Amino acid sequence: METTILIGYMAGTLTTISFLPQVIRSWRTRSTHDISFIMLTLFGLGMLLWAVYGFHIGSLPIILANTITFALVVVLVAMKVRYK
Amino acid sequence: METTILIGYMAGTLTTISFLPQVIRSWRTRSTHDISFIMLTLFGLGMLLWAVYGFHIGSLPIILANTITFALVVVLVAMKVRYK
Repeated sequence: METTILIGYMAGTLTTISFLPQVIRSWRTRSTHDISFIMLTLFGLGMLLWAVYGFHIGSLPIILANTITFALVVVLVAMKVRYK
Repeated sequence: METTILIGYMAGTLTTISFLPQVIRSWRTRSTHDISFIMLTLFGLGMLLWAVYGFHIGSLPIILANTITFALVVVLVAMKVRYK
């Protein structure tokens, strides 16, 4: 069971931090042309719903992880609008 | 409780299908320059671990959702390598 929880935390950490290098790259290159706006919208909405789900079941890790990723996706959407 | 499960399924569906429009866009434009390779790697690894986690706890929805997304991320990595 401990291994299972460890795998869950590793998975959660990876998917949460994965959008950070994307934000850094888009910030540096000032280019977001190849990133799908529909992907960002669907993914961001999904993150928001996961956070609501975490709130419903009272899971702080789910709330935290998805709120952080949602914030990173919002930054990407803003850059997508700003840089075209 | 029913609302909670519904929110969970909606969230899972959105995050699972979100990479499909990205794959379609990258396929059409033949350009993946703005997509971070580190993001794809971390996210793909995270998806794989989520699938393993789903296998550990015996959850078919978690296995299915994350395997589908992992496959889409693999396609994106292949296009990233192919199209530069």
